[in-house]
Amino acid sequence: MKPRIDFWYEFASTYSYLSAMRIEEDAARAGVDIEWRPFLLGPIFKAHGWTTSPFNLYPAKGRYMQRDIARIAESRGLSFKMPETFPANGLKAARLAIAAKAEGGTAAFTRAVYAAAFGRGLDVFDDAVLTDCLVSAGLDPDAMRERAADVETKTALRDNTDEAIARGIFGAPSFTTEDGELFWGDDRLDQALAWAVAHKASKS
Amino acid sequence: MKPRIDFWYEFASTYSYLSAMRIEEDAARAGVDIEWRPFLLGPIFKAHGWTTSPFNLYPAKGRYMQRDIARIAESRGLSFKMPETFPANGLKAARLAIAAKAEGGTAAFTRAVYAAAFGRGLDVFDDAVLTDCLVSAGLDPDAMRERAADVETKTALRDNTDEAIARGIFGAPSFTTEDGELFWGDDRLDQALAWAVAHKASKS
Repeated sequence: MKPRIDFWYEFASTYSYLSAMRIEEDAARAGVDIEWRPFLLGPIFKAHGWTTSPFNLYPAKGRYMQRDIARIAESRGLSFKMPETFPANGLKAARLAIAAKAEGGTAAFTRAVYAAAFGRGLDVFDDAVLTDCLVSAGLDPDAMRERAADVETKTALRDNTDEAIARGIFGAPSFTTEDGELFWGDDRLDQALAWAVAHKASKS
Repeated sequence: MKPRIDFWYEFASTYSYLSAMRIEEDAARAGVDIEWRPFLLGPIFKAHGWTTSPFNLYPAKGRYMQRDIARIAESRGLSFKMPETFPANGLKAARLAIAAKAEGGTAAFTRAVYAAAFGRGLDVFDDAVLTDCLVSAGLDPDAMRERAADVETKTALRDNTDEAIARGIFGAPSFTTEDGELFWGDDRLDQALAWAVAHKASKS
């Protein structure tokens, strides 16, 4: 069996955009499977006493983040546009991403949402935007919305968030390996993949 | 003339340790000059309403930081030990680093202080520790202490901190290029060096 990493992401997170757009290709090259784990940062930030994104609370950090991502996006051939509403409410998108799992559509839908949010600066709490994302991922919007409203879906998202906290996650994107290592930030993706490969190999 | 980057560091900063121990070699390889710019994060954190390091304020982040640095330090053959007093008061070390400039000793002294702080877990506000660092950098402790107490030295450190804030710096290590780009974090050092080279070349 291939090694696996869990990819923890929040739809309001700019740096998660960078990872979402490259993780499948990078993981395939490394021979690693990806488990897509949408979760919500809101409860974690609230526990820090933060009422909004740290990029809003600390303006110098927010300005830097935008410049940093613009440079990286350019180097990777990605477009980058900050949405007017930041941070977005990622709740609907996260539930839909979980609902899409049975269809095998989580990855494609996740990328479509991030491309809308940070490639085109759209508000991904907007139902029309989400419908476009579902369709572009080959999913049926009505069926997905129905499943997203199920108790099972809501519980699965809460479980992801609880597990993220239990694993020590405090930001997104984060990556965890099967042996419990945590890596935070798009700039740690390569390291997480290498760790997963090296430590799987040492066990088998 | 070679391109230059300014290296902004605070002696209490764990990630600055990682950069201080490799920047001279990496910059030489890239053909870039380094300006060593010690500054104080205290006033910047205070403006955020923080009374201590964010790694203390947010324990999950603090635990992650220690594991992250341990992994990176190991991969680079560096030892890593957190000091009991964290964050250290970096004031004396920063003034001595500035005082050492006329002797060409800033880089060697800076590395000695970081090796003491995070390689051996010592308190770099302790005079005996600082004396060892000065001696190991080939500097005269009495002469350096005298110069560190000069108004010029104190003013130079305040100026560094003011300039850091004016440049949008909010954490350490940070790197700035001659054309005003800011890069934050040890994981952006390579990018900062590449930027300096590419943008110097395009102007000459």
